[in-house]
Amino acid sequence: MQQEPAHKRKRGRPPKQDGDRLETRDRLIRKGTEILTEKGFSSTGIEEFLKEAGVPKGSFYHYFPNKDAFGLAVIENYGKYFATKLDKSLLDEDVPPLDRLSNFIADACRGMARYNYKRGCLIGNLGQEMGALDETFRLPLEAVFKDWQGRIAHCLEQAKANQEIPEQLNCEDIAAFFWIGWEGAILRSKLVESPEPLELFAEQFLKMIKPTG
Amino acid sequence: MQQEPAHKRKRGRPPKQDGDRLETRDRLIRKGTEILTEKGFSSTGIEEFLKEAGVPKGSFYHYFPNKDAFGLAVIENYGKYFATKLDKSLLDEDVPPLDRLSNFIADACRGMARYNYKRGCLIGNLGQEMGALDETFRLPLEAVFKDWQGRIAHCLEQAKANQEIPEQLNCEDIAAFFWIGWEGAILRSKLVESPEPLELFAEQFLKMIKPTG
Repeated sequence: MQQEPAHKRKRGRPPKQDGDRLETRDRLIRKGTEILTEKGFSSTGIEEFLKEAGVPKGSFYHYFPNKDAFGLAVIENYGKYFATKLDKSLLDEDVPPLDRLSNFIADACRGMARYNYKRGCLIGNLGQEMGALDETFRLPLEAVFKDWQGRIAHCLEQAKANQEIPEQLNCEDIAAFFWIGWEGAILRSKLVESPEPLELFAEQFLKMIKPTG
Repeated sequence: MQQEPAHKRKRGRPPKQDGDRLETRDRLIRKGTEILTEKGFSSTGIEEFLKEAGVPKGSFYHYFPNKDAFGLAVIENYGKYFATKLDKSLLDEDVPPLDRLSNFIADACRGMARYNYKRGCLIGNLGQEMGALDETFRLPLEAVFKDWQGRIAHCLEQAKANQEIPEQLNCEDIAAFFWIGWEGAILRSKLVESPEPLELFAEQFLKMIKPTG
């Protein structure tokens, strides 16, 4: 997630051109995504998002009707971004299915290391905040989790077809189990600023689904 | 991080009776605990804690040097409260060790249902907030997790001694795996307002550690 250089950012009143408008909206979403992988939504004011995105104070409402609408746009953006990240590993036909899952895990570990374990999962962060968030956040957040774990389930089905995991395994349940726990592992890795919880969780999970015979 | 006991600290105009002072401090901690199982620490102002505890506005600093010190006292209180809750199930000699773990899980599910899945784990909530919290929170939060998972590990050792789980299982690792994932399950149950993620995680976990032979 790269930030545009400061000298390229425009300041002042909202741009007249649709292209500029879209660019500013995208920049706000991109910067919002970065911020919300690190910090809470309720504790972050609109001003902080604007300041970080280099968008003039007061012009927020040209792009979003309110802060919640902005939050929902960030969720949608992050859901898609991470789905692409998952697919990159999980749909890699050159690799046996279970190794694709290991590749995703390794990629996610590198991703957390890159930001010194300061950035976690935006969906997990906002899910944890539900007590303070508007109810409209609930369904979109859960939909993103379901989408991601569906991709894991699909990969596990392929692992089963490839006889890498036992026939009797319920891939949907196991994928849900993985994603429920994986979010816990991200939380814990952020807390201890180390890959250890992610690695421990992944290792035990893979041991669990491999045939014991 | 030990805080000096309230009665030793001298600030402002303390209440005349030590008993009253302790009672008010306890009430603040109790109410803070309730609030922080539902909401974030950074997004909740001191005024809200005072209001909910029925303590006059402005008297907070008679009890705590600052908001962080209050947060740390709440963490300590919750850590102990939940350790007692764990022990109630996990040290129950009338029940085989693995059933004790199931009893704890069932108890935790009832606990979440009681508050309509609005209250999660205070330590998980604050852990998720680390990006916005003072660094002094990191170690106390991790220490609480370690304490809790140590109690799970102890129970698993007893299950192993009782031949309920395979000899080759590393109880420390499995307990860490459980607690990492369990926090994810709490987060998800809060999100979907249902026991399903807790139940699914627990069921798959128990399947995993039971002998397959």
